[in-house]
Amino acid sequence: MLKFDEKVEFQNNRHDILTAGELLIDMISSDYDGNFESNTYHKFFGGSPSNIAMNVKKLGIHSLVASAVGEDGLGDFLIKQLQIANIDTCCVQQVGYSTSMVVVTKSKGTPIPIFYRHADYHLAYTSHLEEALLNSKIIHFSCWPISVEPVRGTIERIIEKAKENNLLVGFDPNYHPMIWQRGEDGVEYVKSIISKVDIVKPSEDDAERLFGKDTPEKQLEKFLKLGAKLVILTLGKDGAIVSNGTETVKLDTLATEVVDTTGAGDAFWSGFYTALVKGYTIREALNFGFAVSAYKLRFTGAVVNLPKLEVIKEMYGL
Amino acid sequence: MLKFDEKVEFQNNRHDILTAGELLIDMISSDYDGNFESNTYHKFFGGSPSNIAMNVKKLGIHSLVASAVGEDGLGDFLIKQLQIANIDTCCVQQVGYSTSMVVVTKSKGTPIPIFYRHADYHLAYTSHLEEALLNSKIIHFSCWPISVEPVRGTIERIIEKAKENNLLVGFDPNYHPMIWQRGEDGVEYVKSIISKVDIVKPSEDDAERLFGKDTPEKQLEKFLKLGAKLVILTLGKDGAIVSNGTETVKLDTLATEVVDTTGAGDAFWSGFYTALVKGYTIREALNFGFAVSAYKLRFTGAVVNLPKLEVIKEMYGL
Repeated sequence: MLKFDEKVEFQNNRHDILTAGELLIDMISSDYDGNFESNTYHKFFGGSPSNIAMNVKKLGIHSLVASAVGEDGLGDFLIKQLQIANIDTCCVQQVGYSTSMVVVTKSKGTPIPIFYRHADYHLAYTSHLEEALLNSKIIHFSCWPISVEPVRGTIERIIEKAKENNLLVGFDPNYHPMIWQRGEDGVEYVKSIISKVDIVKPSEDDAERLFGKDTPEKQLEKFLKLGAKLVILTLGKDGAIVSNGTETVKLDTLATEVVDTTGAGDAFWSGFYTALVKGYTIREALNFGFAVSAYKLRFTGAVVNLPKLEVIKEMYGL
Repeated sequence: MLKFDEKVEFQNNRHDILTAGELLIDMISSDYDGNFESNTYHKFFGGSPSNIAMNVKKLGIHSLVASAVGEDGLGDFLIKQLQIANIDTCCVQQVGYSTSMVVVTKSKGTPIPIFYRHADYHLAYTSHLEEALLNSKIIHFSCWPISVEPVRGTIERIIEKAKENNLLVGFDPNYHPMIWQRGEDGVEYVKSIISKVDIVKPSEDDAERLFGKDTPEKQLEKFLKLGAKLVILTLGKDGAIVSNGTETVKLDTLATEVVDTTGAGDAFWSGFYTALVKGYTIREALNFGFAVSAYKLRFTGAVVNLPKLEVIKEMYGL
């Protein structure tokens, strides 16, 4: 049971959080553009769990990334970005496939990305990865690596080993049929994963893709029924409703200025995890999640220059 | 037998040349850069056979492209470029895979590209493709589509049908292990294809990758022994040696100014094919190949604004 006014008891492991999954290049058009008319693109460090690893490091805790990139210039670039941020890259595997990439146009609507998945899904479960895992407090992953084999098998072993060792497991159920391997019902598989993790943070869109349209309260119940211990259903400008199965709370966003929503969800995870590791209660950590998200929303880009969590605390009066 | 001072007798088919294989995005860094440090990239229409289709259209004959691109913005962009050039796109298939892409840095040395192959290798042999094929005079392809299934099967059927109908088949044996499907000896397969085509135009590097190091004359013999009817072995600034098995001629390059070598080989093919279709002898067509290549070398880019073949004839005194 994850109680709102209690702290999460972590083991005294030396890594705070291990994020597993996509580390990739976002290739984004320089102009606003509906359908790839633009000829100029800029490359960015990308991948949701990798962005979280970057964020929490800036906020003040230790992170590790378990990902696979290519033995190529783009893979070298991604590893270098992690090193510049002082993130341990011992669990980044360089494999004989091209570094994965997502090409997307800068858009004011909802752009349709083009996916180039190669290296990322070749992440192997190694003794080295297991050692890092057993020395971590929190494990985090999204739908991306569970959408296709063989990396899915690696994530399944990570979950199993994390549970055996009482690590906290967070999962972003950002299911989308576009990334799923052909010929498989991704919805059913994602539901099976929700039953094995501690914390999920779906958006309303995520919930609708998994369960169809319904009220936020009913969606929350469906996640709980599957077995998640804490469900944070985000509602955009309306904040979030959160439940641990016995108590449900409604939280307001702290955002006052919205410049760019890219990466706001990852910023929430980052503030939430950092606060948990720093010994705040779940209720407090949820507010830190909203505070870091509000901070990020004021700037453009998926990963912005976040201050330490203590500065966020002062800024947002937490 | 393809005799140097004879014309190739073509059937009275309405399409002059059908190029089959890669139609893709070249994503090239804006700065000279050894290892993908550059953050800005420009997208270009690309793929060697597609560049040939563009070139020959400008030189004055009719071309068709048989290729597969994605049902996405980049696929739409490629099709649009063909349409702008007035090239029939009836044999461009849009398939449910991302449009293939090659990412490369602008370089003064030999840059190492990163390959993202998806849609391109899903080109299917359709009744529509067969009809276009049977209405063509020349078929051209490179090593790219034969390097992987299922498009390899499509090319094999194209070759078979072309031979049955006495079409001229040109093949660029630009073998490179980096593009080949894993676990297969590409060299042996490329050799098996050389035995089935009429004309091959290897560079010295291509020859070395297929047969190991040897003198140009001996390399030429190896291609002939495999069954090619006309072998054009290009020697960079030293021109080419060409043999039909009974006669061997040495030809000089017509280049006087070299600004950018990208696409020079495709320009050669383009001038050569266009001249053959326009009724010149093989010896004359080879000189047209060198003239178009020399013209292209004066400008930057894989596809430059070529004039009509008649203008090239005047310019180079052919």
